[in-house]
Amino acid sequence: MPHVTVNHADVVALERPTIATHPVLLVGAGPGDPGLLTLHAFNAINQAEVILLDALVADPIRALIPAHIDVIEVGKRCGKHSMDQRQIERIMVAKARAGAKVVRLKGGDAMMFGRVGEEMLALQEAGLNYQVVPGVTAASGLSAYGAMPMTHREVAQGVTLITGHGKQGRVEDWRPFVIADHTLVIYMGVKQAASIQQGLLAAGMNPQIPVAIVAQASQIEQQRVVGTLTQLTELAQTPDLPSPAAIIVGEVVKFHQQLDWFSADQAQLASFGAKVAKLAM
Amino acid sequence: MPHVTVNHADVVALERPTIATHPVLLVGAGPGDPGLLTLHAFNAINQAEVILLDALVADPIRALIPAHIDVIEVGKRCGKHSMDQRQIERIMVAKARAGAKVVRLKGGDAMMFGRVGEEMLALQEAGLNYQVVPGVTAASGLSAYGAMPMTHREVAQGVTLITGHGKQGRVEDWRPFVIADHTLVIYMGVKQAASIQQGLLAAGMNPQIPVAIVAQASQIEQQRVVGTLTQLTELAQTPDLPSPAAIIVGEVVKFHQQLDWFSADQAQLASFGAKVAKLAM
Repeated sequence: MPHVTVNHADVVALERPTIATHPVLLVGAGPGDPGLLTLHAFNAINQAEVILLDALVADPIRALIPAHIDVIEVGKRCGKHSMDQRQIERIMVAKARAGAKVVRLKGGDAMMFGRVGEEMLALQEAGLNYQVVPGVTAASGLSAYGAMPMTHREVAQGVTLITGHGKQGRVEDWRPFVIADHTLVIYMGVKQAASIQQGLLAAGMNPQIPVAIVAQASQIEQQRVVGTLTQLTELAQTPDLPSPAAIIVGEVVKFHQQLDWFSADQAQLASFGAKVAKLAM
Repeated sequence: MPHVTVNHADVVALERPTIATHPVLLVGAGPGDPGLLTLHAFNAINQAEVILLDALVADPIRALIPAHIDVIEVGKRCGKHSMDQRQIERIMVAKARAGAKVVRLKGGDAMMFGRVGEEMLALQEAGLNYQVVPGVTAASGLSAYGAMPMTHREVAQGVTLITGHGKQGRVEDWRPFVIADHTLVIYMGVKQAASIQQGLLAAGMNPQIPVAIVAQASQIEQQRVVGTLTQLTELAQTPDLPSPAAIIVGEVVKFHQQLDWFSADQAQLASFGAKVAKLAM
């Protein structure tokens, strides 16, 4: 008989001696278009007293943060060094213990490559309550606004999401990521483009498979550069390619022109000097 | 020199002779908690005239749809047959051509396993404008509310998302999905649990790897059943397990009790008869 866990709130309450404070909110801000903030994320930003802000949170979302909120930059921006992960956790715990409504705001989905597990553990060990607000992950953003349906029925049975660097540095073995009829999205991989290209080719991936780099996905400044796997290194050297950017590898990339809908919006929004993408309705 | 595509709005405008109508919005509604609707999705629901509604859209989100909106159920619910994909596309095109503000509302992320590519193609071929609103995908929802950090640094370098059935039926070869230090999420796989268990074991996956089924992720009714890969078939037979449900396979499942935060909320919300999960702030 398997171990079944259903509504075990009582057990949890016994196991976790919780300090009575506001729960810390670990929140994903989505890929950049403020319209992709969830209702929970929007509320969290507006009701916070302290926001620990990731470098990957896009400028149009930063612009929505009310001026009176204590914003602590914890990521690498403007040439400054990013904080050590343990230091971020210490500040989060200290601010929450002091009674503040603390929001940890991350780019994309809070649960994807954001070291959220470590932050949940730090809060749990400190006896503090927390809640997690997942967000729209970068792959979904670039797939939608980049017009590359990542699981298009005829050409992709699924999608794999990885980062350009593993726990101890670069990915050593690319063979597990060469999967037929499958899409691969590599977050934060542009600086490692040469080793990714080399690794995937050495692992046997089709050199002619379409690849794209999508920078600032879902934002008015979104840029897509498209080619084949043999051109990935060159694509990554495109001048003035902004960050963050992700690499998408797979046959679904070939739809990027036929299904494009966002370029026309971008042009129109840019001509208005708009900073926020708006739906047409 | 690779083919570079940047802001090619003019090219697109030439290539796509567009009929002047409201753009059809292809919208992801997220995993179920209405607080995980994006601002764009929330606006789309409230400004629509016609909503083509997927069976996977959760009840608390359906409850938010204003009463005057023409809602067309296109998914399999209440024993009725689901519409053929081509039929859905025909209705969508016809309603948009008639001048209505049409929203195609899908569960989770619009870009993930929702045949959105086919719908974009159908609209493009009909000369109709569209926009895509990505959403929080089920994997992000179950990872956050199920307390299983899917890319936890020490145990998972990435995540693969697939469905329980491929283009022509069941997945035939599970070997590509046995990846070390990696999380696997199988959407809509509960009915195929026995063949998934068999397939993954035959492909060499560790029989003792933790697995969970998370049903109605992020909703007050969320249920998690947890065991090992050898128990997956039995877990799937848990009485009264609601749908939709997804299977998560990987070491990250082991955090589900230690990092749990949602069970206490569920109990409290249920005692209020609440239908909407609220943040504590």
